[in-house]
Order: sequence, then structure tokens, then C-alpha cells
Amino acid sequence: MPEFLELLSPSKALERLLANLKLPAPVLETLPTEQAAGRVVGIKVLSPETLPAFPRSTVDGYAVHARDTFGASDTLPIYLSLGPDTPMGQSPGFNLMSGHASLIHTGGMLPDGADAVVMLENTQTTGSGELEVLRPLGVGENILQTGEDVKAGQEVIPAGRKLRPADIGVLMALGITQITVIKPPRVAVLSSGDEVVPPTVTPQPGQVRDINSYSLSSLIQQNGASPVRYGIVPDRREVLFETLRKALQECDAVVITAGSSASTRDLTAEVIEQTGNPGVLVHGVNVRPGKPTILAVCDGKAVVGLPGNPVSALVIARLFVTPLIYHLAGNVPPTFKPSIIARLKINIASQAGREDWIPARLVKSGQGFEVEPIFFKSNLIFMLAQADGLIYIPADATGLSTGDFVQVEFL
Amino acid sequence: MPEFLELLSPSKALERLLANLKLPAPVLETLPTEQAAGRVVGIKVLSPETLPAFPRSTVDGYAVHARDTFGASDTLPIYLSLGPDTPMGQSPGFNLMSGHASLIHTGGMLPDGADAVVMLENTQTTGSGELEVLRPLGVGENILQTGEDVKAGQEVIPAGRKLRPADIGVLMALGITQITVIKPPRVAVLSSGDEVVPPTVTPQPGQVRDINSYSLSSLIQQNGASPVRYGIVPDRREVLFETLRKALQECDAVVITAGSSASTRDLTAEVIEQTGNPGVLVHGVNVRPGKPTILAVCDGKAVVGLPGNPVSALVIARLFVTPLIYHLAGNVPPTFKPSIIARLKINIASQAGREDWIPARLVKSGQGFEVEPIFFKSNLIFMLAQADGLIYIPADATGLSTGDFVQVEFL
Repeated sequence: MPEFLELLSPSKALERLLANLKLPAPVLETLPTEQAAGRVVGIKVLSPETLPAFPRSTVDGYAVHARDTFGASDTLPIYLSLGPDTPMGQSPGFNLMSGHASLIHTGGMLPDGADAVVMLENTQTTGSGELEVLRPLGVGENILQTGEDVKAGQEVIPAGRKLRPADIGVLMALGITQITVIKPPRVAVLSSGDEVVPPTVTPQPGQVRDINSYSLSSLIQQNGASPVRYGIVPDRREVLFETLRKALQECDAVVITAGSSASTRDLTAEVIEQTGNPGVLVHGVNVRPGKPTILAVCDGKAVVGLPGNPVSALVIARLFVTPLIYHLAGNVPPTFKPSIIARLKINIASQAGREDWIPARLVKSGQGFEVEPIFFKSNLIFMLAQADGLIYIPADATGLSTGDFVQVEFL
Repeated sequence: MPEFLELLSPSKALERLLANLKLPAPVLETLPTEQAAGRVVGIKVLSPETLPAFPRSTVDGYAVHARDTFGASDTLPIYLSLGPDTPMGQSPGFNLMSGHASLIHTGGMLPDGADAVVMLENTQTTGSGELEVLRPLGVGENILQTGEDVKAGQEVIPAGRKLRPADIGVLMALGITQITVIKPPRVAVLSSGDEVVPPTVTPQPGQVRDINSYSLSSLIQQNGASPVRYGIVPDRREVLFETLRKALQECDAVVITAGSSASTRDLTAEVIEQTGNPGVLVHGVNVRPGKPTILAVCDGKAVVGLPGNPVSALVIARLFVTPLIYHLAGNVPPTFKPSIIARLKINIASQAGREDWIPARLVKSGQGFEVEPIFFKSNLIFMLAQADGLIYIPADATGLSTGDFVQVEFL
């Protein structure tokens, strides 16, 4: 097993992991678009149509010939004859003659001949079939020209986009009611540790319930992949080896919570080395919590060994498992993570050169938020329930001071 | 219909809407906890157990009597006899005598008699069954005492919490494998407009496809409610009235996209007034886009009339429909929304006294992000696909300047 004397930063460690993966072609499936929110687009979407398909009014007003309005003002209005109203939802079916105006609603199709729309508030009706226009218009004013929104053949959604409500709307606007998306990658979850029992079991003295299998499965699902649980593996080399081999055959990546003690972590690393090449790439990351993290690749597939502590496991999973899933799904990298800026309520010390992630509570304060770390003796389970998010302390900081504005990522 | 001469701010308008609702008792259902991520907890969860159930070591090291280590140092170590190792996953089954030490792993149950754990790195083994302890320990050091995490009867998850991966872990730790959650509220979605056709139809000249039914359904689902689509309603009073009445009977709230023209918006407001009391509470909000928004209550249930423009509809739905869903679900108010702070690339003007939400693109720039608004002639559909989020301009700002750090909420 290679030894890495200096610890890598989380971003360098992730880079090394991703660089060693061999990604198979993504498996695609086609779904009704209305069910595809949150799914990742498999093939870039080109517009089959030009939108708008006809010149539309963008305001409520009167369709006119722009040149008829030249010189119009409040004090010297231009008088136009009222032609037929422009109907909604159909072709107007008439030609607007010069010197005439036609009532049109927002979204209405412009009658032939018209080349501008004067807003209602810039007109007055006289009651004698005439319209006073109170300001001059340029050609094209208050009109959306054919193709001004999207042109046929134009890329509207890139491959790798995770579909948002807005994207669903865009697809429907173009009549794309079926969409090809990527099948969610399958991520195996293994818990190890002789002291770990299933949540349904009442622990005996010395035993604890399996937390990580469930919190990590939930995180994996939240990020658009399918978790596959392989249960609790005892700290025995041959059982861990067999389970890992099976998980690697059946899934696209494997996450192991490696037990809480140094000896079970070492066992995990040794078994990974046996299971495939190049094996362990990173053993130890310059982050707190989560220093004993293992990143490995076995014959092209990622194996992530997380600390056994539930808080550490979840923090580290956000740093490595979440971006790994996005990478496996062919998703554009999640370059921005939801977070909030809040004012720190107390000083926090941090070791320079190491990233820190500190569970914290947000408190509304006037227009903004204050944030206070949740300090306990160790990373207790209950911290997870109390925390709104994690305060991030960059590697180059030696700490944060009361009153600093800090970035808090949501849990 | 009441006329409101001055426009309300979005937050005041929302307040007025929520204050007029009559909420029925939430409908509860019980689920396996592992399937409950994203669901809202119906009844506060009290811990059925004390955790940890036994004193545990928080480090890898040796269990000792703290007083035996008094005065220990690198230069003058204390010598202890090595007793039996502490096993993982079971009660140690022995009493640690004074003057002795027992190898223990992180998470291991402390043997009787031991009251501290010295970390491995502060010890040396001599090879003759003796341990050198290189520093003194206080009582309780590196130990988690019984009940230090959670005590039986303590509240661990409040009612109204939307369950996150961390919460699933907490519940499993306590053996709570079934959880009572609130049934998702049903939110009706109606599109109105004579020009609107279903997405499966090829629009004739003057027609456009229904976008809002689908983008809004997707947003509603994303926020944990069940959308129920009532299709496209023509701009005819009696049809709109009948559909609205049916939707109010069958659902917990109704969202109508009120057509793009002033006349169809007026029709929507009139029909809402006919349908129930107190009727329209807000007609017009001081926000851009979305000024013509209607907020109403019909016999206790909310009716939200959104602008017909798809971009405006989605922006306004985030301001009113999202918090309404949280309110209906009994969820603790979503007081913080995921956003990112980015440096503005250009100046943006804004009218003082009005909130603005501007679709924008994020660009990675060094350690942070830059943001640039997407400007088009009108709020085009394609803007939705191109935007990463919305720049927020508070009501008291007259604009934002190049280089300002601004808040961008994710779409």
C-alpha cells in the first residue's frame, strides 16, 4: 500500500480520484418530461421549432404602423382610425392599413402590416372610432419578432443539466414531452464495525446502531443516484473482501464507512488494495473532521472509505461522494453549492493549512442571519439534528472572528 | 372587489395571505424512516433512549485510572501494567484495576474502574507488558459519558422539520425505524388563456403551448406538495368559475396563471370574488416581474393568481407558492433560501421602493463567482434555460453597481 506522507487538500484529493476513474458510457432512458425534474439530461436538446412562431405583442395596447406615429406627443397627439380588434389565440386574418390601429393583448399575434404596438397608457380613445396616440414609436417597439426567443436547431438544454422546474417549462414550450435522461448511477453503501448492529435491534452493552448506511443512502438519493445497501460487514478480512467485490460488480461506485478505530480503517485500506487496481490513491485528507478518509479506484470504479463517526461521515460524503455522483451521472460539475452568508457570533480557531467544517445553527437577526457553531466534546449524533449547516473555514485561515461574515453550507 | 391603491411589498402581501387562511389539522401518515427523507415530521420526536447507553472512548488509546497518570511527562513517564484488551461490540466484562491500562478503540465501552483514555500517541509500549504514559489525564478525558449525547425523553426532532439525511441518521441511531409525517398538501394548478394549447399540440398561428402548468407543478413537487393539474381553462367566466370551485373542493390551495392580458387578469379576480370569502386580498405587488399578482382566500383556502408570462410566473411562485406550501405542510418556515454571493459584472438600475428579481448567469472566477444578468427584450422562455438563478435587488436600493457582492438565489 502506498504511503502518503503529506496530506492532500480535499480538492486535490478529489481531483486525483476522478482522474483515475474509467467511466462507461452512460445508460440512457426516455421519460415523459413532466416526470423528469431532478433527472440529468443525457443528450443535449436542440430546439425543434422557432419561437415565437409569429410576431407577438409584449404589452396590452394597439398594433400600428410605426411611421404613422411620427411626432406624436401629449400636446399634439396623432389620430388613427380604429380597425378590427386583434383576437387572442388565432391569426388576426386581416391586414392593418396605414392610418389604422387595432386593439391587441399581451401575447397576441400581430396583424399583417403592423410593425409596432403602442401601450394602452400612451393612448386615449375619443369615442368616435378614433385613437389618440400620445408618443412616437420605433419599428419593432413592444413586439417580439419571430425567432427572437429560440431558433430551430439552437441548443436549449446542454447534456448533463439536472432538470429544474424552469427547464421543464422550456421543454414543454417547445413541445418536447419526452426526454432522454441518464439512469441514476448505483452507489453501494457498506457499514463496517464489529460494534455496529441494525437500527431495528436493541444494542447490547458496547454496541451501537448503524447510522451511516441510512444517512449516506439518503444523501446519495438526494443527489440523484440510487443507493444500494450491503448491510453491516464485520471487521473480518475475507467477509469485507467478498462484500466489496460483489458491490463493485453490481454498482458504479462503493462507499464504505470504515469503522471508527485505526485498526479497522487499516483493514479497509488493505482489503481495497487486494480488490482492484490502482487501489488506494489517497489515505488521509487535510480536513477536519475526516482526516482518515480513503479514496481509491478498483479497476476503474471509485471506492470511498469514510470515517465511522456519523458527523464526519456526512461531512466527508458531501466533499467526495456528492461530486463523485455528479461526475458519474455526466452532470455538469456542481460548481456552486447552496449556502448562506451569516455573521459569526463567536471566535473560532482553526489550524492554518487545513479546511474545517463546523456544524452550526443559524439564527435570524434583522435582515440577515447570525451563525453559531455547535460545540460538543466529540461529534455527537445529536449535533446532526441541531445543525442547520456547516461553517466553512478555508485552509489559509487561522480562524474566524466574531462579526465575520462566513459561508454556511446547508446540511 | 376591493381596490388597493398602493402596492404591497411581497413580504407584507404574503403576511396578509397567510393571516386569512383557515388551516385544517394536518393529515398524518406513518412511513419507514428510510423512505422519509424530504418529508415533514408530523409530531415532535422524543428520544426513547439514552445515548450513548454506556461510557465510550472517543479515541484510540488505553483506558486508565486518571489519578494513576498524575505527573506523567515525556521525560518522566508513568508506567502502567497492560491488562486485557477492551473488546469492540460487547461489554468488557472485567474491572480495570488501579495501576493498569487496557487497549481500547474509538467507540469501545469503557471497562469498570477506568475513568479516562490516554491517546495512543501519548503512550509507548515497552515490550515487557508495560505501558509508558507520557502525559497526565483528567477524569473523563476522551470519554463520552452515558447520556452525554441524548437523554431519554429529550426532543430530538421538532414537528415541522423537513427530514434531511442527517435527521434520518439521528432517527436510526435511536431505533426509530417508523416515523409519522404529514401528507403532502394538494395544490391545484390551472392555466388560463384562449391562446394556450397543451404541449402535445402543434400551435396554430396566434397560439402558444402551456408552459406554466408544468413548470409550476414541478416547483410545487420540489417543495414537497402534490400538484394536481386542472388543465387549460378558456377565458370564459362560467368555465373558470366551475373549474376553480372544483379545484378548491379537491385541493388545499389553488394556483392560477391568469393569462397575459389585463382583461383576463381582471376576469380571474372577478371569478375569485364570486367563489368564496373574503376573496381577493391583494391585487398588485410591488415587485418586478410580477406586479399583477393576485392573492386571495376563498372560504379558508388560498388562491394565488400568477402572471401568465412563464418567467414572471416562476419568480412569483417562489415568493408566494413556496412559502404557502411550507405553511400548509406545517413546516417550520423556510427562513433561509439557498443562495450564493457573487460579484456583479455590470451596473443594474432599479426603481427605489420596488423589489427586483433578475434572471442571471453565474461564472466561476478565481475563488468565487461573478454574476451577469440575462437581459432580453421581454421575459423570454429561453431565459429560463440559461439562468442559473435570480439576482435580488431589495426595495430600498436604487440599483446595484459593478463589483458589488450580490445575493443570487438558485432557480
